[in-house]
Amino acid sequence: MSSKKQLHLTAFMRPVSLHTGAWRYPGSYPDANFSLPHLTSFIQSLEAAKFDAFFLADHLAVLNMPLAALQRSHTTTSFEPFTLLAALSQVTSRIGLAATASTTYDEPYHVARRFASLDHLSSGRAAWNIVTTANPEAARNFGRDEHREHGERYARAREFYDVVTGLWDSFADDAFPRDVERGIYLDAEKMHVLGHEGPELKVKGPLNIARPVQGWPVIVQAGQSEPGRQLAAETAEAVFCSPRDIEAGKALYADIKGRAVAAGRDAGQIKILPAAMVVIGETVEDAQQKRLKLDSLVHYDSAIASLSIALGSDASKFDPDGPLPEDIPDTNASKTGRAGVISLAQKEGLTVRQLAGRYGGYSGLAFVGTPESVADEMEAWLEAEAADGFTVTFPFLPEGLESVTQRLVPELQRRGIFRKEYEGATLREHLGLQRPANRFFEGRVGADASA
Amino acid sequence: MSSKKQLHLTAFMRPVSLHTGAWRYPGSYPDANFSLPHLTSFIQSLEAAKFDAFFLADHLAVLNMPLAALQRSHTTTSFEPFTLLAALSQVTSRIGLAATASTTYDEPYHVARRFASLDHLSSGRAAWNIVTTANPEAARNFGRDEHREHGERYARAREFYDVVTGLWDSFADDAFPRDVERGIYLDAEKMHVLGHEGPELKVKGPLNIARPVQGWPVIVQAGQSEPGRQLAAETAEAVFCSPRDIEAGKALYADIKGRAVAAGRDAGQIKILPAAMVVIGETVEDAQQKRLKLDSLVHYDSAIASLSIALGSDASKFDPDGPLPEDIPDTNASKTGRAGVISLAQKEGLTVRQLAGRYGGYSGLAFVGTPESVADEMEAWLEAEAADGFTVTFPFLPEGLESVTQRLVPELQRRGIFRKEYEGATLREHLGLQRPANRFFEGRVGADASA
Repeated sequence: MSSKKQLHLTAFMRPVSLHTGAWRYPGSYPDANFSLPHLTSFIQSLEAAKFDAFFLADHLAVLNMPLAALQRSHTTTSFEPFTLLAALSQVTSRIGLAATASTTYDEPYHVARRFASLDHLSSGRAAWNIVTTANPEAARNFGRDEHREHGERYARAREFYDVVTGLWDSFADDAFPRDVERGIYLDAEKMHVLGHEGPELKVKGPLNIARPVQGWPVIVQAGQSEPGRQLAAETAEAVFCSPRDIEAGKALYADIKGRAVAAGRDAGQIKILPAAMVVIGETVEDAQQKRLKLDSLVHYDSAIASLSIALGSDASKFDPDGPLPEDIPDTNASKTGRAGVISLAQKEGLTVRQLAGRYGGYSGLAFVGTPESVADEMEAWLEAEAADGFTVTFPFLPEGLESVTQRLVPELQRRGIFRKEYEGATLREHLGLQRPANRFFEGRVGADASA
Repeated sequence: MSSKKQLHLTAFMRPVSLHTGAWRYPGSYPDANFSLPHLTSFIQSLEAAKFDAFFLADHLAVLNMPLAALQRSHTTTSFEPFTLLAALSQVTSRIGLAATASTTYDEPYHVARRFASLDHLSSGRAAWNIVTTANPEAARNFGRDEHREHGERYARAREFYDVVTGLWDSFADDAFPRDVERGIYLDAEKMHVLGHEGPELKVKGPLNIARPVQGWPVIVQAGQSEPGRQLAAETAEAVFCSPRDIEAGKALYADIKGRAVAAGRDAGQIKILPAAMVVIGETVEDAQQKRLKLDSLVHYDSAIASLSIALGSDASKFDPDGPLPEDIPDTNASKTGRAGVISLAQKEGLTVRQLAGRYGGYSGLAFVGTPESVADEMEAWLEAEAADGFTVTFPFLPEGLESVTQRLVPELQRRGIFRKEYEGATLREHLGLQRPANRFFEGRVGADASA
């Protein structure tokens, strides 16, 4: 293994792309939401490029948008994560498989069981992205009129995590001797009945599946808010976050690692992986043009609605092909958003239409350039302790993915900051994470990660 | 297609077998609960034999048994059905995939979504076995002290079914034009918001996945009780039941079909598939010996406990190797069970130990004999309108499965009562079931089943 610090790369995916205009991009597969062969080719390319994991974006509702925007979005239909990842586990052998499961709208017994099963089916490649589900439309699909309050959701999330990990520890790793001669399948002394009774949850156990191959599937979180950061620091092993630039990344990195250490954890056992869209071109200019073309495919009706939200003002009155007016009224509610739009308009010299496409498509952190310039940026983040790697999103598929796996990854490998081969078998091993001890059967810790 | 009436065959599976002694049978795979390659070979053999479906048994708890019995059982650990069936969908192409989902301990949005996803991933091969979950241990894994009352569970099950099928109809079959030029992915007029508000459930919708390939996955039920039969008659398309003999089978068949017709349904659109264990030998005697050997592998401690329950008397005081005593006290609570045990002991001349093995293993309907004698029995049930086919369980694996696929199935095919090739692509087509119309988009009925 290289002595240089190593990047970790996970692919944050929706079948068509996270960008709402991507299904219209030349060469894209608008039917990827219905088509397993496309997804199979995507994940196999990522595995060939030695990505740590394939991470499926998810929601528990059709997203809440005006109908005019909704009908232009490919996000209305998507495979369910556990069934999709289990299917993809059979066409891959090494890449990690990360699914989102909600602590607000699911049961810990189901969640623990499904992840344990995915981990067994994939020989130790599962990860759980813990979310509390902030979309109010989801509440209405699960018997509630109103979304639960933020703090309450996080209190339940923490208890939910304790129950799920406790259920994973229902059996010692060597609980199943399967001794045909003596007729002993299970050593009952190596089974633990959880008997959890807390403020939110009451779950007896044991779980009806053997301990996961990884002990526990890898714990992923996307905490950005105050309680989200704290929960991540206490429990997450990979943090999926959205700093807007390297300075914000450094601050967030230091904050979360500091909280983890304060909670008694090893800072190396929590990997900070900011989300970044990567757009590769022949030149920086070419990559920027691709991005502008992609943004232009977001329909103006929905794009302008997103820009209005970001600005806190109705942008539909502006000249689409002119610059952003200078006299936009200042509203308290949206100071940060408004400042961000103005700064972006100035920096990239974008018209109102182009700004609208950006906000209607994807306006988070992006690395846009050549394989070399993007590798420079990623290396800078790694060296500056702003990231341990990235949660990569692709602007359009398959081209945007192939340019990463075939052009960016070789450049990162050439620099010695990304693996050329998988060194371990499980996702924990890819990420350099230890296999957790079983809290009920001490001394039965599995082998440490080799990476 | 043969003009003779056709049998349908589904395989009712646990990875190791449903029989608790099976993991100790010579040649069995005690690690099949942990091993996808074994399950892959099982389902591929069933598909090569043109079985209608692979049906996974399931529970939401470690079964409630005394520890002495529990540690001898291979049922303590098992894959979760949706992840397992999704994985198996990738190593098969035609066989149906039936999963159990509980209406008492799950959410209709999750259930609708997972089945729709499995149906898309498998190109139309999913089936939902609707259960209300009668195991009190399951209640304690889902926040309840007590199991819900039987009638209440069935009322919720009926409402749950209405919500799930309503969610499957969220989109017309042609709701997604994916028109790149016009930028229209979804025709929003072909999306329906369910807005269900009932006594048990409140679910807004729409579902966030396109209508299943089959319209709705096939609806399976195992109703035997009064409300169970009625729910099956109103909603099920395949009924998994447990009559003890052909006379009971005829009565149950007539009752359920009669109720279905009374509910306004076509009797041909509900298939009655009794569960039957099939044991094949070189001779009838050889098959009986295999079964006795299998029963003898159930440990006596757990076997005798099962026999005591069936008898309503403590059987551990009897001489294990003698006949059943004639002076067993009669108790009101167990009249039927006690009579069944006495009749079986007389019919097969079994010792107490052998009876215990039978009750501790599998004591339901069984066809035990040569390929010819078992085919005779199956054909008799089919002709007598006691069954439209069978939910086959295997005594031990792989041998018990291979003797069915390689010896019984060819005999059924030779008689012209079982397909030699799949004639359709979807499970509905295998079973001769129509594709349901979308209740919100009339006139958009898909092609009828070809079989």
